Parts: sequence; C-alpha cells; structure tokens
Amino acid sequence: MTCIIEIISIGNELLIGQIINTNAQWIAKYISSLGGIVRRINTVRDSVDEISSILRDTLKRNPTFIITTGGLGPTFDDKTLKAIAVALNSLLELNEEALAMVKARYCNYKKNITKIIELTPARLKMATLPRGATPLHNPKGTAPGVIIHIDSSTIIALPGVPGEMKAIFEESVLPMISDSIGNLFVHGRYLKVTGIVESEIAPLIDATMHDNPDVYIKSHPKLRSHLELHFTATSKSKKETENTVEKSIKNISQLIYEHGGTIEEF
Amino acid sequence: MTCIIEIISIGNELLIGQIINTNAQWIAKYISSLGGIVRRINTVRDSVDEISSILRDTLKRNPTFIITTGGLGPTFDDKTLKAIAVALNSLLELNEEALAMVKARYCNYKKNITKIIELTPARLKMATLPRGATPLHNPKGTAPGVIIHIDSSTIIALPGVPGEMKAIFEESVLPMISDSIGNLFVHGRYLKVTGIVESEIAPLIDATMHDNPDVYIKSHPKLRSHLELHFTATSKSKKETENTVEKSIKNISQLIYEHGGTIEEF
Repeated sequence: MTCIIEIISIGNELLIGQIINTNAQWIAKYISSLGGIVRRINTVRDSVDEISSILRDTLKRNPTFIITTGGLGPTFDDKTLKAIAVALNSLLELNEEALAMVKARYCNYKKNITKIIELTPARLKMATLPRGATPLHNPKGTAPGVIIHIDSSTIIALPGVPGEMKAIFEESVLPMISDSIGNLFVHGRYLKVTGIVESEIAPLIDATMHDNPDVYIKSHPKLRSHLELHFTATSKSKKETENTVEKSIKNISQLIYEHGGTIEEF
Repeated sequence: MTCIIEIISIGNELLIGQIINTNAQWIAKYISSLGGIVRRINTVRDSVDEISSILRDTLKRNPTFIITTGGLGPTFDDKTLKAIAVALNSLLELNEEALAMVKARYCNYKKNITKIIELTPARLKMATLPRGATPLHNPKGTAPGVIIHIDSSTIIALPGVPGEMKAIFEESVLPMISDSIGNLFVHGRYLKVTGIVESEIAPLIDATMHDNPDVYIKSHPKLRSHLELHFTATSKSKKETENTVEKSIKNISQLIYEHGGTIEEF
C-alpha cells in the first residue's frame, strides 16, 4: 500500500506572504526521500471554520497521514486543536499526559526566568486535546504535538515554529511514516541541457517515458539559457531503481544529441 | 465587496520538496499589500484529475479570483489548461490570439537559435485554450497566461517559471485585482518583545484586540529569546488605518511593561 500524505499548513502569516512555507517543503522533501507520496499541500488561515472544513475534505480523500503545522500555541489565534475536534464531531478535554509535558517545560523555564509561572488558561489550552488524541513530546518547546487516529487515516498536528516542528517530526513522526512506507529506494538524478528549447524536448521526454514507464521525468525551463531535467524512480530494489534511472538518462541523452542539444550532467 | 483570492500552485516539484513555493508567497504578499485577502494556497501535482478536482472545489467557495501557477508549458506534464477545461465541462480549442503570441515568440527565438522552428504539436499546445478563455501576453517567455470568467469568479492561469509569472502578473493581472480591491490602505507594524513568554502575552493580545477590533495582532515566538508581534489594519482612510495600528501598539505596550516585558521596536 502506498503511503499518501497530505500537509495542511495553518497560519495567516503564510497567506499574507509574510513568511515562506519552509515547513511544508522540509516535510515534503523528507517524506519523498523515503518513498512516501505527498499528494497535497494546503494552506489555510487561523480560523476554526477554515481548518475544520479542509480537514473534513482531506479525510474524504483517505490519505494515510494528514500532517498539520501551526496553531498549537497558547494564543487566541492558535485554533488547530479546536478545529480538529470540530471536524471529528469530538470534544476537547484536558489531557493528563499533555499537561505533564507542559508542566515539565515550565519547570525548566523557571530556572531561567526566575519567577513563579502558573498554569494559566493560555497554558492549559496547550494540554487540552481532542478526545482520543495522544500528545507527542516537544523537545524544543512547550506545545506538544498531537496524534489522533480516525478510521484509515492518522492526523498529526505539529507546531509552526520550524525548530519545534522538526524536532517532534524526527523524534515521533518519522518512525511511524517509515514503518508505513516500508523499505523503498528512491533514486533521483538531474541533467542540465543546453541548445534545445522546452517545446523541442517535450516529445523526447514523452518517448523516453514511454520506453521507461517506471521513471518520472520532469523538465524545468530556466528562462532561455538552459533546461533542467529531473529523473526519479522508486522501487523495492536499490539496484533496480538506479538502473531504471540510468537507462532513461542514456535513452534521452541520445535523442537530445540527435536534436542538436548538449548535456551537462550535475 | 472584499476581494478574495485563492492560489493553486501546480507541480510535482513542489510536492517532493525539490523547490520552495516562492511564487505563492510573492503573489500573496503583493495582493495583501493592496488590501486583498488570500484565503487559501493549495498545491497539487501535475494531474488532470487533481487539478480539475481542486478547481471545482475552489469554485464552490466563490473567490473573486483563482490564480493558478504552473503547467502551461509544452511538455506532457503541463496539464493546467486541459484540467481547467475538464473542471468547466468545456473544450480545448486553438486560440488564434494565443497562436499569434506563440508565433511571435518563436520568431524572436530564431534570431538566436539560427534554425527554422516549426509549430510542432508541443508548441501548438501552448495556444490551445479552454473555450471562452483569453490569452495574456507573456513578456518573458512563450506560454501565454490565460484568463477565463465563470459566473462570479475569474480563473487566471500563470506559468510556473517565476520570471514569467511575475511579468504577466504585473502587466495584466495587477490592474484587474487593483480595480476589484479599490482604494484600500493597509498598514503593518512589528514589535520585538523580550522578557515575556508567548503564553503570558496571549491574554494581553486578547485584551488589546477586544479594545481595538479593527486591528489584527499575531504573535510569532522565536524560540525562547523573544517574540515578534505583527499588527495589521486595513481601511479606506490612510490616517484611520495608521491610527488604529498605533493605538493598539500603545495599549499592548503598556500591558507588556506591566507584566515585566520589554519592547524593542523594529
């Protein structure tokens, strides 16, 4: 079974272009390198309606994992957990395990900040999870990650701060996703091609992909000066994966030379 | 009427994390600076099913504009125009105006490439548009942008190459979006806050937004060292917009000092 992931990035700052979505790229690259398929990356604003609506739509497509980033913190506009509860027609409740995580974090803080920190409503909020969810330890911050299984999908909610997101992903999420993907080998290569424009190379790519159905070739025009060709294949055998890519590169290189182009590997 | 925009980014390279979605950020920032609202940024792969399915879902939400990037080129995996036709239950047909644009472009190419370039199927593809669509001149490349009006929404398809996307956006898309938005002023300010953690500042933001309903305040934790607060307001009067933001900054600054925090403006 193919492991399909959909990413939901949450945050107004992404929709006003204030920051670029490095979280989604990082997750997508990581998962792709393991042989998982990232099917969609969707960005919505900090709104319970928007987040719960996209969660419902995403669940209908039955991805193996839905990974959300953002909206787990203590402020009023951190709405992801509420939205998950709404999407699942579930309730939010204080989770004892999450509360212990939040408390432990503030005990560490106290050493630096030298004043008594109480469990205010804003802090309790980070430990109030949809019923049935499990918190994921956050090695770099306070808000725990959250995981909840629904039928054939699993929702994983991660914080938006990149350092915290990556730490929880590597510690808790990666092992689950790797298990689901199994042992797959992904092999990718690039070629730089000059002397031929994209519309001339299009039929050569079509012919090569026809003869090499297990490889995916994509051309990226870099304005007029050159094109990049990107080759990828995925299979259960390392050797087979590499051979598939190498054979397709050999085939298309010959066609490109026949059409007056030049190849610079890189 | 508020001008609502949804962006659909198309391309497998975005879903494998090979490149980061700078196009969506650029468009989102531009539109937000004019007072338009970017409601969603969705990324899908080069698949007619995926693109047409998300277009149909997006049209149901009735945004003023749907801007797609990517998938307008000559190769087999450039599928945006086909997908738009499928989503609208329409047909693709050779568009004479678009054909003239593609031809004009290759005439310019000839001077550099010094060989006769024919209108191959791959090139004709870039001039084959959904019925009723209008091409948009591409000052930096071959594939024209495409615009098509459907009931209360307008779909604008732009190329994925950033230089081409930006050139068409500024030449043809910006005037339309500016017209739709009208004269709005957006004012934004940042504060850097130290000595107070996000869970402590959360109730202060809530209180300030309650007293200043026209300003939007968002906190961005920068790990433990400091927080950034981002203030924005939009209205038809420049002075009113600025006053709204300044008043909310004054209010929250006082609260932050009372709670032991320090403010560094920047």
